[in-house]
Parts: sequence; structure tokens; C-alpha cells
Amino acid sequence: MSASSPAPRSDPRPVAVIVLAAGKGTRMRSALPKVLHPIAGRPMLGHALAAAATLGPRRVAVVVGHGAEAVGAAAGAVLPEARIFLQSEQKGTAHAVLAARAALEGFAGDALILYGDTPFISAATLARLVAARADADIAVLGFEAEEPGRYGRLVMDADGMLDRIVEAKDATEAELAIRLCNSGVLAADAATLLRLLDRVGCDNAQGEFYLTDVIGLARGEGRACCAVLCDEAETMGINDRAELARAEALWQARARREAMLGGVTMTAPETVFLAWDTVLGRDVTIGPNVVFAPGVSVADGAEIRAFCHLEGAVVGEGAIVGPFARLRPGARIGAGAHVGNFVEIKNASLGAGAKANHLTYVGDALVGAGANLGAGTITCNYDGFDKHRTEIGEGAFIGVNTALIAPVSVGANAYVATGTVITRDVPDEALAIARVPQENREGSGRRLRQTLKARKDARNRKNAGDGKA
Amino acid sequence: MSASSPAPRSDPRPVAVIVLAAGKGTRMRSALPKVLHPIAGRPMLGHALAAAATLGPRRVAVVVGHGAEAVGAAAGAVLPEARIFLQSEQKGTAHAVLAARAALEGFAGDALILYGDTPFISAATLARLVAARADADIAVLGFEAEEPGRYGRLVMDADGMLDRIVEAKDATEAELAIRLCNSGVLAADAATLLRLLDRVGCDNAQGEFYLTDVIGLARGEGRACCAVLCDEAETMGINDRAELARAEALWQARARREAMLGGVTMTAPETVFLAWDTVLGRDVTIGPNVVFAPGVSVADGAEIRAFCHLEGAVVGEGAIVGPFARLRPGARIGAGAHVGNFVEIKNASLGAGAKANHLTYVGDALVGAGANLGAGTITCNYDGFDKHRTEIGEGAFIGVNTALIAPVSVGANAYVATGTVITRDVPDEALAIARVPQENREGSGRRLRQTLKARKDARNRKNAGDGKA
Amino acid sequence: MSASSPAPRSDPRPVAVIVLAAGKGTRMRSALPKVLHPIAGRPMLGHALAAAATLGPRRVAVVVGHGAEAVGAAAGAVLPEARIFLQSEQKGTAHAVLAARAALEGFAGDALILYGDTPFISAATLARLVAARADADIAVLGFEAEEPGRYGRLVMDADGMLDRIVEAKDATEAELAIRLCNSGVLAADAATLLRLLDRVGCDNAQGEFYLTDVIGLARGEGRACCAVLCDEAETMGINDRAELARAEALWQARARREAMLGGVTMTAPETVFLAWDTVLGRDVTIGPNVVFAPGVSVADGAEIRAFCHLEGAVVGEGAIVGPFARLRPGARIGAGAHVGNFVEIKNASLGAGAKANHLTYVGDALVGAGANLGAGTITCNYDGFDKHRTEIGEGAFIGVNTALIAPVSVGANAYVATGTVITRDVPDEALAIARVPQENREGSGRRLRQTLKARKDARNRKNAGDGKA
Repeated sequence: MSASSPAPRSDPRPVAVIVLAAGKGTRMRSALPKVLHPIAGRPMLGHALAAAATLGPRRVAVVVGHGAEAVGAAAGAVLPEARIFLQSEQKGTAHAVLAARAALEGFAGDALILYGDTPFISAATLARLVAARADADIAVLGFEAEEPGRYGRLVMDADGMLDRIVEAKDATEAELAIRLCNSGVLAADAATLLRLLDRVGCDNAQGEFYLTDVIGLARGEGRACCAVLCDEAETMGINDRAELARAEALWQARARREAMLGGVTMTAPETVFLAWDTVLGRDVTIGPNVVFAPGVSVADGAEIRAFCHLEGAVVGEGAIVGPFARLRPGARIGAGAHVGNFVEIKNASLGAGAKANHLTYVGDALVGAGANLGAGTITCNYDGFDKHRTEIGEGAFIGVNTALIAPVSVGANAYVATGTVITRDVPDEALAIARVPQENREGSGRRLRQTLKARKDARNRKNAGDGKA
Repeated sequence: MSASSPAPRSDPRPVAVIVLAAGKGTRMRSALPKVLHPIAGRPMLGHALAAAATLGPRRVAVVVGHGAEAVGAAAGAVLPEARIFLQSEQKGTAHAVLAARAALEGFAGDALILYGDTPFISAATLARLVAARADADIAVLGFEAEEPGRYGRLVMDADGMLDRIVEAKDATEAELAIRLCNSGVLAADAATLLRLLDRVGCDNAQGEFYLTDVIGLARGEGRACCAVLCDEAETMGINDRAELARAEALWQARARREAMLGGVTMTAPETVFLAWDTVLGRDVTIGPNVVFAPGVSVADGAEIRAFCHLEGAVVGEGAIVGPFARLRPGARIGAGAHVGNFVEIKNASLGAGAKANHLTYVGDALVGAGANLGAGTITCNYDGFDKHRTEIGEGAFIGVNTALIAPVSVGANAYVATGTVITRDVPDEALAIARVPQENREGSGRRLRQTLKARKDARNRKNAGDGKA
Repeated sequence: MSASSPAPRSDPRPVAVIVLAAGKGTRMRSALPKVLHPIAGRPMLGHALAAAATLGPRRVAVVVGHGAEAVGAAAGAVLPEARIFLQSEQKGTAHAVLAARAALEGFAGDALILYGDTPFISAATLARLVAARADADIAVLGFEAEEPGRYGRLVMDADGMLDRIVEAKDATEAELAIRLCNSGVLAADAATLLRLLDRVGCDNAQGEFYLTDVIGLARGEGRACCAVLCDEAETMGINDRAELARAEALWQARARREAMLGGVTMTAPETVFLAWDTVLGRDVTIGPNVVFAPGVSVADGAEIRAFCHLEGAVVGEGAIVGPFARLRPGARIGAGAHVGNFVEIKNASLGAGAKANHLTYVGDALVGAGANLGAGTITCNYDGFDKHRTEIGEGAFIGVNTALIAPVSVGANAYVATGTVITRDVPDEALAIARVPQENREGSGRRLRQTLKARKDARNRKNAGDGKA
């Protein structure tokens, strides 16, 4: 019977991905929609979409509801081709998929249903699931649960095909003993799925339309269903912030381990926080307590010392950063350059071998190779309205406590004397200075001390007197 | 027999709490008395007293010995009404309770015996224990031990009442198999307890008077005893600093989890350290490596970025703090204000939307709404003897590397030019400046470099020559 | 038969230690030779050599290969008397030991074979192994493996002596059930070992010469072999950076625990990183997130607050360091001195009670007792070629934002006014000042603001116009 034979295999079949992301996530107790809470610096929805994108889908649909605008925008930021569908009321997962009906109609290929709050399903697992669909009308992603508890159970038949899904509350003792559980993720021939979805009812306690019901309907038609297994960790859904933190921890543990096996030294990996897109070269050394926000790459042999925070920054070969350094977006640290303690670099390039070792802020600037910025060097890039640029030439030596009022430039190999406020350009090889001669007033230190002490004593006496009064 | 019937129930019976806090804690290897070692920023004695206080006790007695003065003061800081009793010699727990005899004499109600080094017994558990006392003359707090080891075992009778307590060293094989253990905490009718305590002897290996012996004496009189169970973690006693650290870790894990479930995001909760009184609003986001010392509250939507240290500070709605910021006692950060990297705020208020983004110290100051403090802004609040205040008006713009010698004020919407030392008040809307014109000396940078290099070369030659000589 | 009796016991027999350190460590994916990767701030080879040194060996040989020069230098830094032998090709462990043939020839005593990538074998275990050698010709170090897997198994005879070592791949089912495994470490009479090594062949899959084969050869001669057991953790070998991190974590956990039991408080020990030579006094308190690089000692009662990084520094009694402080090599912090947030001290001494509380860099300096360095104090110790020294006398008060151009000195009890650049010595008790009078320009702040705003508005209009064009 044609109804019981799977949709014909043409490898690879086109895939349409539908990501359900309409839920509120009440247990998150947040004004931010659940799927926008980040893991490794990326909204969990972004992780789900990125995995889906590896399949090269013809269509991507994201079903939004709570925080629709923000969720849609976040989806577009990851996959601009994603179409956004609004599910105004949340009436179950089948209802949610049908909100994206237009993405399935007339689509000759497979539909893959994913969830915005299940960010960890790997590209490999999705590929296996879609491939398995060739052998059945519907392929369901399952997992061996450590504690099956309230998960729906996958009941397999003697041929190893999926017979049915039983909700825990409806399960017999024997069915409850099954540890193979339903993740909710499935792949199905798009036309078949759409047809079955239209038959799903809401005659249940919640009055909702459940995607899972399509399995029963398909089996009722004599269609074949199969299950594909993945690691339980991949199917981890996130419902509150403790689970969010656990998901982050799992992600971090895996990412750290991969980095180390690839040739990165981490003294204390459990204190290093990577972002989803962090790139670390070989023989990079990372001290304890380093945080990578998104957008960072570190070249071979560079050293990121303890207590650093990096975001949107590029660190060159053999550069040394930290301890206690902050690289903000647009920081470009040249090969062999040094960024030391209590130094902030923002939207600025340091040339090869340049040094900014202590208590410095470099913003909106270009610092030449080999330049040396003394402690307390600060670029005045902001006038309260606009940001302006500072240029410092190669080999320049900027004295301690120098302020550079941008826009301004210091020439190559120029010197700036300690404590100078640079208000206009300094030519190459010049010395810029603005200094009041130091005056030593003999004995004045002693007299000042006596005056201050007398003042304090007098006030103490007065206070004591007031206390008595 | 009247002796075997419990003291009559009047609900709630008055409670007198006696906290034993006289021990030295030799294994702590510390000059600080054991019960004063902090957990979550509060002496462990404080935790015990705070739990006791939830019962609304009529009398609170703290028995002190080692470090009596400091321990008494710490107790008074938590519960000013606590009476302090000195146990000059430590001759056992019964002896310790009797040091507070005056707190029990003539007290018509229950006595509850607690320990200063057992800080985690919850208010709910104490309430259950006191309530159970109504059904017996003495109610003992017990726990199912993971590893019963050397704990005393609670031997129950057929009626589920406490028959006796057997010390591990005196226990039979069968008794050793009992996992129900004695915490040492008990509630008893005060008059009965006092009478029994006077009968406790010291005929044992240590020559000490043990509180536990009152159970046997009570049973000998035909009195009823019962046991109340709590989680083993609650009864955790602390005897060395490794146990102290474990107790801290348990406390932190629970507090972090509660915060997350309440709507706080922590990227890496295991690196966030809360204090006993930390208050965090909804949708507060906390980055990795943030330390809260006592006295901090953070309003809804505020963000505490990585590497911050906060103590005695109030952070307003939507404010952004860090990374690398330190808020010290008296810091008040207004709604939407920004405190950036390498910035310290002490006893100072920042108005709504004010910014102190880089390398700044604001102490003893009032900063108006919308004011912008440039990098390197420093209030000179201390003259070596006294602290003085700085006021900065709304909308003021403080240039980079400005020092403000307090007492001094800068008016609303005033500008302070980069590098100025402010010694007197600046009017509203004014521009304050103190600047030496920059001088560019052509070629002097090159000559200076040559001079310095020649000097170094000469010395290197000399050193090399000395080496040969 | 003499062949079967152990070498005669003379207690203590001289010991020659041979440390094999020639391997490349491919899985480390590093340009740095494997044995030079550090644990607790010391190359793992250094740990192995330090343990060996506790035996007081007459000879120490280190067999190097990959990165020979660097490895040899590192060995010499720990044990200058170590002789370095080059194994040009890596043809197995027996081949490696024979590279150090000269260290064994003519040596009347025991040879102890260790590995540079097995850094955790304790001095006590080595002493037991060498002592056990007296009862057998060869004593092998074994361990009860949690997961024996591919380890070679130690097959014991009925007398409890070591009968043979079976490689996992050659083992019978019964032999695979043995959990007693071979660490590779052994002690043997030097002359016997050398003789047996010359008989080891390379007729195996790898074509290598295995040290383990000497057991079979010895047994073939009727010689006695024995096994000495140690904890599995001691024999942990390190083959990739994830294992390196795990080794570091194990080391840290043990070191933290020892410190705490010795009287150090760590609020969050899991965030404190000690070095192999860190010395911490009694009642030292260490906050969360503190990193000790090598060379630090902290005296009794000192407090190291959160977020500190210390290296090569000495902290005196009762001193307070941090939060957010960095002590670099040569920092000497006097008793009761304070080093506060965003402060860096390098090669400089702070006298008793001196204070550097905020945003300060003190390099190459001597600061007298009780001196107070204001926020923003910076020593200009580097002129681009040389480092120079700064001296600050006892009780001196250095105003905010002071730069001191070294070489220079400030006398005892002198005052330096805020914002001064100190270019020449300041006498005792004097006041040094260099200041431009502050000028308040009425209304100029408002006009400046209007000008800047108009400029921004104009540019915005222009940009908007460009967008239209």
C-alpha cells in the first residue's frame, strides 16, 4: 500500500526547518523571551538555527509569539532568510507548526521541527535524523533518559520501528520501564506532516494540539515511523535559569576540552569562559579567570593572562594580554604587543610590539608598531557628543599621565613628556611638553601637616564638647 | 505518674534559646574564635542566632569562653537582647548550658540548645523541633547520616519515641548499624532540663559533663523523649577550615540556585559569591566572577558584569556595573548609571544615567544625574587627616585626568577641561581649566632618544669592561 | 644460587636517578616539549626532579630528546648537578635508559628510573620503592587501577613477589581481571639493570626496546622482583592538555586543603590558585579569585582580597592586599601596609603601614613606613631604555595624580601637591607643587556644549543628506 511506504528517497531531499520559538518561558521569570537568553554569548535560538543551517535547508521558518519582534529580529540576525510566523495564541506544538503552514505548503521535501529552547542538538544528529526519514514517513529523535520521569516514552515494535509514543501519565508499568524517551524533534515528509497536522485534535486535559499526535495518526494510516537516538545532553530543554546555567556549564565544558585537545593551555579551564565563536590558535596560553565575550580570535602563541575580559577583539601572534586587561570591540592587538594591567582598549589597534602596560585607556585610536604608552595614558576620545580618533606613530614614547585630546596625532618616534595634555599634533621625532616647574617649599609640608592636624583636633574637641552638651 | 507526662502544652510556649559558643576550635588553627569565622560574610554564630530569632524567643543566652569579648560583641550585633554568659573553663556541653543557668531559672517555657558552630539549622527545622517538644519532655534533633561513623546513635523504641542515645564507642554491632544520629540540638521544658542538668556527672574518659546525658536521666525518671529529623546538611558542624570552606560552598550553592529560580541570570553561578543579605531584583544579570560582600542590593534589570566586587552598595534599575568595578560601602548607583572598568566608588552617589566608565575613583561624593566623569577622574577626598566631600552637578562633564580637591563642587552642566586640578568651586554652566600650553620641540624627541641610548650603551660597555677586569 | 639472591643490603645504598624526558608529546600539540608544560607554575619535569632529590641521589641523569636544550636547561634549574644525556632517536624506554649508560656504569648502588611526564610520585613513595629494592633485585612501582584498561598487569606469585608483567594486549582473560598495574617506575641494582638492559631486544610490533622487558629477563635468571604499591593518582601520566589541566586541578585541590588545615581561610578555595612554592602564614585570609604565581610568601594575619595576582612577592604581617591588586616580582609589602584596587607594585618595597590604595603603579621604588600614595600615583621608572629608582620617605604624603620621574626622591614627611610632576628631589618636610591656577570661565561650559552639539547636528544632517543623494 502506498500509504505505508515511505516518501521516495532522493538524496539529499530538500529540507524545510521549522523552529518553534513562541513560548513565554514563565519559569524563567524574565522580561526577556526565553529563547533569547544566551548560552556562550548567543541566544539559545541562535544555537538551534545555526545547527539547522548546517543542513542547507531550502526554507527556514521561525514561529514566534511572546516577544515576537525581538525573537524575529534575533532569528534574522543568524539566518536572514528565515521567515517569521506569528502564533498569536499558544495552543500547543501542532498549532505552532501550523502557524508556519505557508512554509510547508507545496514543499516537496522533508520538514524538520526544532525548538528554540533546545539549543544543543548537534548538526550530526540532525543529519542522521533527516537521513533516517528516508526509511520511514516520520523520524522521531529520541534519547535514553537517565531518569525518564515525565518524558513521553517511545514504544518500539519487534522490527525496531517506532510503534507509538505514550505520555508518562498514560503509561502502563511496563511502558514506564522504557528509558527511550521522546525529544519532540521530528522529521517528516512535508506534505504528509501537513495533512496529519490538520487532523490533530485538542481533546485532552490542556485543550491543546500536540505535535506528538501525528505519530498515532500516521500509524493509524499504516505509515512507518522510526526513532533516531542521540545523547540525552543534546535534547536538554531549558525552562528556568538554573537549567540555563547548567546548559551553559555543559557547553563550556565541551568547548574548553576541545580547545585544550587542540593545543590550548588552560591552567584552570573551569574558570575560562568561551563564547560560541571564540577562535584560539595553537599554544595559546590562558590563565585562570578569563572571559571571552563573542567575536574574539587569538593567534598562535599569544598569552591571555589571568583576569582578562575580551570582546570583539583580535590578538596577534605572541602578544601578551593581562592580567587585568579589558579588550573591547574593535581592539586589534598586534603581534608581540603587550597590554598590561588595568588597561582598556576599545576600537583601537596596537601595532606589532607596541606596549600599553599599566592603567591606560586607548579608545578610537591607531597606535604604531613599537610605540610605548606610559602608565596613565588616556585618549580623550569623547567630548560629550562625538567620538574622535587619536593616532600615535611608530616608535613613539608617550610619557606617564598623558592625556591626548582627540582628534590628534603624535608622530613617529616622538616623545611626549610626563603629565602633558596633548591638544595639537606632535610632529615626527619631536618632543611635546607642557609642564609647570616644580617648586619645593621648605618646611611647608611640616606646616601643612600641623595645620591639618590642628583642624582635625579642633573638630574632635568640638564634637566631644557637643557630645557632652 | 506526673513525672512521665510531658509539660503541659500552651501554644506557642515561650522559648529560651541557649547558644553554646565557648569552644576554642583548635583545629581551626586560628587566633579568631571558631564561631566568628564567617560564612557568606557573616560569623557562623550570626547564622545560628538569626535562625533562633525566627522563633521569637523570650530569652536568648550565648555562652562564651574563648575569645569571650569578641564573641559576645558579635552576638550582640545580631541580637542586642542576647545575654552573654561566660564559661571560664570548658568542661562539657552540660557544664556550658549551666553557665547560662540564670537564663533558665524561673523560666516557664522551653529551652532550646543550639551551637555557634552549627550555623545551618533552618528556621523551619527549629520550629518543628520546638513543636515536637509538646509531645515529649525532651525533643532531640537527629539526622540520617550518610556515614554514621563516630556520631552518637538515636535508639528508638517500638512506639517511635527516643529510647536512648548510644555513643559510637559504646555501641553494639546492631546499634552501630543505626543511621539515625544525634545532632546535639535539643528542646526541653526549661525547669525539667535545669533539674536534670544538675544531676549530670562527669564520670567518663574526658571527665566532662555531657548534655546528652540528660536523655538517660529523663528516661530513668520515666519521662518521654522524642526525635525530630532534619537533613544532614543542616547539622553540619565546622571544625577546621576545609569544613568551613565546604560549608561556604553549600551555602553559596543554595543561595545561587534560589536567586536563579527567582529570575536572576548568572552565566557561571559557581563563580558568583553572594553574602547572607544580598538582594537581587528580577532580570538582574551577573557575569562570571562577581563577589558580593554584605550589604548589597541590586534593582531590577541591572547588570553586574564580570570581575566586580560590591560591598554595602545599592545599584539602581538598569544600571550597568563593570567589568572590573569595585563598589565600596556607601556607593549608590542611580538608575541607568554606568560604572565601568577599573573604577572605585566609595560612600558616593551617582545620579541616574551618570557615567564613570574608566580608571576613576569617586569617594565621599555626590554626582548629579547625567554627569560624565572622564577616564582618570579622581576625587581627592583625603588630606592625610580628614575626609572631605565633592559635589558634581547634573549634566556636568569632567574631562580626563581631572583631580578634584575636596571639599569642592562643580556646578550643573559645567565643563572641566582635561588634566585640570580643581581647587575651588566651579559655577553652573562654566568651563574650568588649568592648563600649560603644549610646546612641540622639533627634533628634540630624536635627540632625547639618542642621549638616552648613548647613556645606556656607555653603561653597558662599562659593565662589560668591569666584567673583564 | 647467587643469581637469585638480591644485591646485598647496605642501608642506605647510594641511588642514581635516571629521569626519562625525551618524548615529544605529540598529543600536547605544542611547540613546548611536553615535560616543560607547567603544573602549579613549575615544569612537570621539575616536580619529578624535586621528588627524586629528596632521596639524596649520588647521581642524577636526565635523558632528553625533543627540545633537548630547553629540557636540559629546565632540569639544571632545578638540580644543577643533573647530567644531561641526549637520546637522538626515541626507540623505547630501555633505549632511553641506555642513553644514560654513563650514569650507571661503575655505580655501586641502585638505579631509580623515573619519567618527566609523571610528576606526582611522592617522595615517600620513592623512598618505599628504594627501600623495597633491598628485598629483590628489581622493585617495580604498581597501582590498583580504577580502570586497568590498556595498562600492563603485574602478575604476582604465591609468595607475593612479582612474577611477570603482562601487556594488556597479550593478557589472558584471567590476567585482564588483575587490577594491579605497572607504572613503569622501577628501582634496581644498577649493575644488574645495565646488564639486563643490554639484553633487551626490539622484536615487537613497534620495533622498540622496552624497559619492562628487564623483569622477564631477571626472572629468567631466577632473580627476585617485587612490587610496591602507590595511589593511582601519583602515577598519573600527562599526554594532552586536558590531562594537564586535570593534573593541575588535582595538585591545586591537595595544596588548598593542606593550606586550609594549616590555618589559612579561603572563602572559595576552588578559585584560589597556588604555586608549587607558595608560603602562607597562619590566619592568612584569601578571598575568591586569587592567583599565586611562583615565589610568593604571605605572613601571618595578612589578607589577600578577591581578584589579586601575586608573583615573586613578600607580604608582611597583617598587610591588606586587594581587591584587584597585582604584586609583581620584587614587591615587598610591609607589615600592616595596604595595597588597594587597581594598584600594581613591581620591584618595590612598601614600608610598614604604607598605603597605595587606588589606581597606582609603583615600580623600582622604596616607599617608607607610613607613607601615603594618593590615587593615580605613578612612578616613571622607564625612559624607553633604562629603569630608574624612586625613593619616598617615611610618612610622606603623595597627592593624587602625581608622577615621579625617576631617579628621584621625596623626603620624609614631605607633601606632594595633587597633580604634580616631580622632576627633582623633594627635601624632608617640604611641600612640592607644580600647578597652574584654575580659571573658571563663566558660561563657557554652556557655549562649548552648544558648539559641540551644533557640530554634531550639522554632521548628522550632512550624513542624512548624503544618504539621500
